[in-house]
Amino acid sequence: MTTITQSTLSTGTEVVIEANPGVESVAAVWLVPAGVAHDPEDRFGLSALWAELLLRGTKNLDSRAQADAFDRLGTSRSVRVSSRFLTLGTTTLGTKLSDSLPLLVDMVRVPNFDDASIDPSRGLCLQAIEALKDDPGERAALGVRARHLAPPFNRSTLGTTDGLNALTPADIRDCWPRMAVPTGSIIALAGHVDPRAVVEQLEALLSDWTGTHPEPVPSAEPPRSYAHEVDDSNQVQIVLMHDAPPESSEKTMLERLAVSVLSGGMSSRLFTEVREKRALCYSVHAGYATDRDFGLVAASVGTQPERAQESLDVLVAEMQRLSTPEGRVTPEEFSRAVVGMKASLIFSGESTGARASALATDMFRLARPRSLEEIAAEVDAITLDQLNAYLATRSLGRVTIQTVGPEPLNPPI
Amino acid sequence: MTTITQSTLSTGTEVVIEANPGVESVAAVWLVPAGVAHDPEDRFGLSALWAELLLRGTKNLDSRAQADAFDRLGTSRSVRVSSRFLTLGTTTLGTKLSDSLPLLVDMVRVPNFDDASIDPSRGLCLQAIEALKDDPGERAALGVRARHLAPPFNRSTLGTTDGLNALTPADIRDCWPRMAVPTGSIIALAGHVDPRAVVEQLEALLSDWTGTHPEPVPSAEPPRSYAHEVDDSNQVQIVLMHDAPPESSEKTMLERLAVSVLSGGMSSRLFTEVREKRALCYSVHAGYATDRDFGLVAASVGTQPERAQESLDVLVAEMQRLSTPEGRVTPEEFSRAVVGMKASLIFSGESTGARASALATDMFRLARPRSLEEIAAEVDAITLDQLNAYLATRSLGRVTIQTVGPEPLNPPI
Repeated sequence: MTTITQSTLSTGTEVVIEANPGVESVAAVWLVPAGVAHDPEDRFGLSALWAELLLRGTKNLDSRAQADAFDRLGTSRSVRVSSRFLTLGTTTLGTKLSDSLPLLVDMVRVPNFDDASIDPSRGLCLQAIEALKDDPGERAALGVRARHLAPPFNRSTLGTTDGLNALTPADIRDCWPRMAVPTGSIIALAGHVDPRAVVEQLEALLSDWTGTHPEPVPSAEPPRSYAHEVDDSNQVQIVLMHDAPPESSEKTMLERLAVSVLSGGMSSRLFTEVREKRALCYSVHAGYATDRDFGLVAASVGTQPERAQESLDVLVAEMQRLSTPEGRVTPEEFSRAVVGMKASLIFSGESTGARASALATDMFRLARPRSLEEIAAEVDAITLDQLNAYLATRSLGRVTIQTVGPEPLNPPI
Repeated sequence: MTTITQSTLSTGTEVVIEANPGVESVAAVWLVPAGVAHDPEDRFGLSALWAELLLRGTKNLDSRAQADAFDRLGTSRSVRVSSRFLTLGTTTLGTKLSDSLPLLVDMVRVPNFDDASIDPSRGLCLQAIEALKDDPGERAALGVRARHLAPPFNRSTLGTTDGLNALTPADIRDCWPRMAVPTGSIIALAGHVDPRAVVEQLEALLSDWTGTHPEPVPSAEPPRSYAHEVDDSNQVQIVLMHDAPPESSEKTMLERLAVSVLSGGMSSRLFTEVREKRALCYSVHAGYATDRDFGLVAASVGTQPERAQESLDVLVAEMQRLSTPEGRVTPEEFSRAVVGMKASLIFSGESTGARASALATDMFRLARPRSLEEIAAEVDAITLDQLNAYLATRSLGRVTIQTVGPEPLNPPI
């Protein structure tokens, strides 16, 4: 039996903990409000460079000693850049958590950012951008995002070559304490953990942490519509993006069920119509992602040039058909979507990493954590009639389509 | 507390089950001795095509009805090709297992292989081969395997374009019952499961299953050595492969610890020397894979042309240094490797999918399943002196190196 506790440290950081005595591992996720949307206008890539540098030592332990210290505990760690946040993650045994937390806190509070580490880290960031040239699928995903969302939420988490090259050691060191602040930071833990002991330890480790900074706000209107990037390869990558409810909306679970009907399993419409009936592609998928303030559905197809136009046509037709009388969700589809979503919830409950991530994002998007039981109840509360009524009024709105391949396609929408 | 039971069905199939009352999910893995090593000489790709077709209906349920039936239970399924086996996998809730097993058994026993499914499936298999043109990393991995291992273990699991195009409906249908046989089949389950009920159900479902066929045997001596594939991209992919103990060897755990020192975490030698100190690459990794009869270590680097030669030189130097007096594993490295391996074992115990896979491969490679506690005890039994004594006598032997990139490199070995 799991129990969730939520507290706010005296410094303003939210801490949410799901204790699960049935497991030995514990996962920690720390959202630091220093994602790419916060990068200075002429320095895109600062957050990507921080993500490398945070793994390379603190004022207390140089890069090598830090790696040794984590590995000595059997604690794995990661840093990931997203739009709003730098997300630090660790996984360890419950018995090693109290030794791991000070190391994690030092990564955020006293990173080293020493001269010797900066250029190698910058080099790796530049290589990651360079590697995009050989990854048309990722370029399509970045392209659709760049034109669908308003700045600064449309930025690539990799940064830009110019931005990375422009960054000085002073930028890197001076901006960090302004961005890595307690207000807006969220720490979530799940697994074998004593909530009270962890909160006390974090309170002690973070008591002198101060600072706040404004959230990013959407600026210009995004262009959206269709764009093609010529790529002389044997594949065509297609991505379509449309708006969807933010997490806080009462329509979120309806949208989630709709996307599950579209792409939730091998009996889903996209898999059946695009991949299986027509063998148009080797991959097809639609996913629904939410922010606190907005949401989006991204549908992608990887295919070959001679199948690309039909793939796009069928993809769009299936997405539109959901909202037509002929395309109403059937009782069987509805039942499968509900069963699939509830099974996925239960499976996620068996992964401490998945639970810690879900709790942290719940805290940001909803300002409160949800138990798996609560989410399952939200799914159960929805009826087929509600879903079809929602879909009947739903429109894809101003969509964005990005293709990467030898020839442009004719967007049917 | 988990308990492992092992039984042999009357038809000869091995069944191994780890019951874990602490979880709700159950994963099933079925190794069918029909991997690419069994493909007819002029029909490489038969197993890849089967893997597609097994997901497209049985004599009892057509493709769509089969997908509906699995999704109705919330059961996800997969089919994967490896050298020796086609591996079918399902994940579901323990409460849905008894309804899922007949569907899984039908996939193996009475697949449909109907004409209407064959060409679309063949098309997807051909597309997967075509997509290799845009995936230099995968081409390097296939290239090193093709030259390091003896036929038929050196084959690509994708098959070949010629082989796939040569396959007739009769090949596809007639070969399956000869290959999908109970002798050599292994079924493993882990999670929320009643072992006795499952064995009874499988016994009933499989009682009339018969057949056996010979195992593949290594034929010609592999060429190994260095090869380069010219690829006009911005990356260089480097893979080095050397022999290592098979799973049954008493040296296996020693090799596993050695590879962990080399590549087991951020404090590992390859990560430190290649990636962090020199920023030579964006990815570097070494992994140890075992078969019942052989083992291999594959080390790979993804880098840019101007860093490629130094990357390869440092990679080889670090791999050789492990066996020199100066390169002896230190007590700190040893301790970190042991802690890391034991933590990974515990984490794997929290994934029913990982446990089912491990039990199935144990049954094939060792002819018995091991509990996590037994494996942890094997790790604990090893001393630093034993590890260094092993490494002092270990040689990389005849290695294989494959590079893919603009220019060939000078292999230092």
